[in-house]
Amino acid sequence: MLFQVEMTVTIPLDFDKVEADRIKAVELAYSQKLQETGEWRHIWRVVGQYANVSIFDVESNQRLHEILIGLPLYPFMTIKVTPLCRHPSSIRDDDR
Amino acid sequence: MLFQVEMTVTIPLDFDKVEADRIKAVELAYSQKLQETGEWRHIWRVVGQYANVSIFDVESNQRLHEILIGLPLYPFMTIKVTPLCRHPSSIRDDDR
Amino acid sequence: MLFQVEMTVTIPLDFDKVEADRIKAVELAYSQKLQETGEWRHIWRVVGQYANVSIFDVESNQRLHEILIGLPLYPFMTIKVTPLCRHPSSIRDDDR
Amino acid sequence: MLFQVEMTVTIPLDFDKVEADRIKAVELAYSQKLQETGEWRHIWRVVGQYANVSIFDVESNQRLHEILIGLPLYPFMTIKVTPLCRHPSSIRDDDR
Amino acid sequence: MLFQVEMTVTIPLDFDKVEADRIKAVELAYSQKLQETGEWRHIWRVVGQYANVSIFDVESNQRLHEILIGLPLYPFMTIKVTPLCRHPSSIRDDDR
Amino acid sequence: MLFQVEMTVTIPLDFDKVEADRIKAVELAYSQKLQETGEWRHIWRVVGQYANVSIFDVESNQRLHEILIGLPLYPFMTIKVTPLCRHPSSIRDDDR
Amino acid sequence: MLFQVEMTVTIPLDFDKVEADRIKAVELAYSQKLQETGEWRHIWRVVGQYANVSIFDVESNQRLHEILIGLPLYPFMTIKVTPLCRHPSSIRDDDR
Amino acid sequence: MLFQVEMTVTIPLDFDKVEADRIKAVELAYSQKLQETGEWRHIWRVVGQYANVSIFDVESNQRLHEILIGLPLYPFMTIKVTPLCRHPSSIRDDDR
Amino acid sequence: MLFQVEMTVTIPLDFDKVEADRIKAVELAYSQKLQETGEWRHIWRVVGQYANVSIFDVESNQRLHEILIGLPLYPFMTIKVTPLCRHPSSIRDDDR
Amino acid sequence: MLFQVEMTVTIPLDFDKVEADRIKAVELAYSQKLQETGEWRHIWRVVGQYANVSIFDVESNQRLHEILIGLPLYPFMTIKVTPLCRHPSSIRDDDR
Repeated sequence: MLFQVEMTVTIPLDFDKVEADRIKAVELAYSQKLQETGEWRHIWRVVGQYANVSIFDVESNQRLHEILIGLPLYPFMTIKVTPLCRHPSSIRDDDR
Repeated sequence: MLFQVEMTVTIPLDFDKVEADRIKAVELAYSQKLQETGEWRHIWRVVGQYANVSIFDVESNQRLHEILIGLPLYPFMTIKVTPLCRHPSSIRDDDR
Repeated sequence: MLFQVEMTVTIPLDFDKVEADRIKAVELAYSQKLQETGEWRHIWRVVGQYANVSIFDVESNQRLHEILIGLPLYPFMTIKVTPLCRHPSSIRDDDR
Repeated sequence: MLFQVEMTVTIPLDFDKVEADRIKAVELAYSQKLQETGEWRHIWRVVGQYANVSIFDVESNQRLHEILIGLPLYPFMTIKVTPLCRHPSSIRDDDR
Repeated sequence: MLFQVEMTVTIPLDFDKVEADRIKAVELAYSQKLQETGEWRHIWRVVGQYANVSIFDVESNQRLHEILIGLPLYPFMTIKVTPLCRHPSSIRDDDR
Repeated sequence: MLFQVEMTVTIPLDFDKVEADRIKAVELAYSQKLQETGEWRHIWRVVGQYANVSIFDVESNQRLHEILIGLPLYPFMTIKVTPLCRHPSSIRDDDR
Repeated sequence: MLFQVEMTVTIPLDFDKVEADRIKAVELAYSQKLQETGEWRHIWRVVGQYANVSIFDVESNQRLHEILIGLPLYPFMTIKVTPLCRHPSSIRDDDR
Repeated sequence: MLFQVEMTVTIPLDFDKVEADRIKAVELAYSQKLQETGEWRHIWRVVGQYANVSIFDVESNQRLHEILIGLPLYPFMTIKVTPLCRHPSSIRDDDR
Repeated sequence: MLFQVEMTVTIPLDFDKVEADRIKAVELAYSQKLQETGEWRHIWRVVGQYANVSIFDVESNQRLHEILIGLPLYPFMTIKVTPLCRHPSSIRDDDR
Repeated sequence: MLFQVEMTVTIPLDFDKVEADRIKAVELAYSQKLQETGEWRHIWRVVGQYANVSIFDVESNQRLHEILIGLPLYPFMTIKVTPLCRHPSSIRDDDR
């Protein structure tokens, strides 16, 4: 089950820097662990923004929801979810 | 140089079906050739839409423009281009 | 896999009435068959609009896409897809 | 009288966690009681959002208003109300 | 059951004038009959627009839908429906 | 001179409750006095919102502005004003 | 009674040029006559657009509606009406 | 050089009243001085809003920018600037 | 007087190709002549769009309007005009 | 690689003035250094706004991202990035 997820992060100007850095470190580990399991298939930075475009490959909508609300930066994020599926023109096996 | 390109196709209700099918066949070949060269890195279908989310990896903005205006379905498309770059959290070598 | 799908139908003023009625009849049969299999879980009319709010329960994103692009009225529709999952407060077993 | 109601919850980052949890517990009880009476017919979680899509079946607009402004989380919500009615294609008796 | 309904009419530039006038005459009779029964409570013209703001008082959502899709000008209209209820500050008995 | 006025009230979560109640009481008296004079012709609650739809009948734009900026809740309101006039289909004398 | 009216004109590409010129000539005369009576107080061109910003000073909303729907180019126009009144800072007597 | 400028003022609910009044007094003097020199040609209040529609006649874009960022209420304003020019239908010499 | 002008061109699918090519050739000459005089200071293509971002340096709003409505492709264009002025941080003499 | 970048700055009303001035001074130096290297090709002020329109010429998307997130005012900015390329009509060698 493929999904495009666009995440935009907004941390308030007066939010504690040390706490923000701590959360970002936990976020990094969280993201990389899910990349390793293959559920978080791709992640790219959007140029000029504190935002990313990601592709998830999960077994269900429920699982995607668990992953997203578990993001350490979730309380600071605006999230847009778009369900995808294989494109008939694709020649790449792993764009399933 | 990475770009997310979102393409939405709108073919008028009264457009000739045979001609539309001919253009779609040329589009398919055009897309697959660029996937083979590696410039069109990924393509996914958006569920419920005649639309795709694609990732391009090209040497320049100019090259991306040439590819997009050369799309056989270009006159029927609305296109949104988002420049991307490698995300610091990515563990995949080819998400460069 | 639950999805809310909102469909809005726009038939051009000068579209042939007989052909429109024929398509609507096929649409009715197509919809009811999918309701019987359980994939099209709910359908409601939006008051004052030629539009509906529907709930689908399908095995995959791919399957939902096949259902939607197969709708006889698809060429006349604007479609919005929202992925859903079970709500922790729900007491109804079939709102899974 | 059927209504689609979309509720999105935004709790400020600095809102007291204990108080937030208390309100959420009251909200849960409030919601389940109305589900039991049948007025709150369906509730689903929107994937990736602190939001739900619900279907209400109430005797009047006035009653729906009373229910919504009585939600314990109401001060934190953005609410969108869409009046629905039975769809002529529906085969389910309780999608009335 | 009170509803605000905002209707905007767009008749194509090349639509037959005689037929348009015929439809408008039927619309006038249709509207006035419903005003007489009390279901179409108020109607005002929006200044500078081919549009109106109306208040309906109907027994159900279903009835409102029947009235609206029965409008002779319905195929030319964009319609926005807003459910209303009595305001606690109102001193007018018939703003129920 | 008829106007549709849509008022939406947003009181900050941390605003003093006692002061808010005091302002609302003044607002109630202010609104009812203007209803009695006939300038505030109608007021309805929008279902699910802290908002109203009102119809004003005033001698001038200037007078409407004075009424609106004098609303005790004005600093908390978003206001949309739409000029109306009598609709040629209206059969009600007081929808002038 | 002062109003800002913003008018944008869109004439279809395939509309008859001679007929368009005829309508524009009638529009010119219509506008200048109303400028002379003082009801159409100001008119300016929006740079780069087939659009104008105008100020009307009329005795009622009804009168403004009559003027606007009587515009020879009305069927080709999108119109936005904003009610104005005298600004307390104004030093010009005729910005009443 | 003519410009339509729309200014909307938003002063936070908890902003000091005395300081706000002081700034408004300076704003009044600033505006009237520019009206006297003829650069601020017109100013009208938007009904129901803390906003104005103004017409400026300045020698350059640079000069308009200086005037606007010099407004005492500038930090509280949202500003929209639209370049205008003489309309060919205008009969007023000073709508240049 | 500096302006950013963003032009987007939409030529209908069924517009005559020979006539379109003729207009584009005239547009090219028109644009290059104005570039040579210095009024059309910069022009760039927007990647993936039949659109450009341009910078104009003209003596007045009136002159800019004449240039824009004189564009051979004007009837096919959507145009957005943004007035600019010298930025205090600029080190380039000709970004005046 | 050319990009149009639109930056809008919003500094909170209660942000420390001295600190804001310090950041602006660093921003000025940062901008001028990049203008000198040629990566920040153009910068113009948007009239009436605390905003600029800039043109960047960089070797890659990655480089543009580094420049933008390194802006001293970045935490206060809303940024819009549009990829550009040479326009076939351009006669200026450095609009490459």
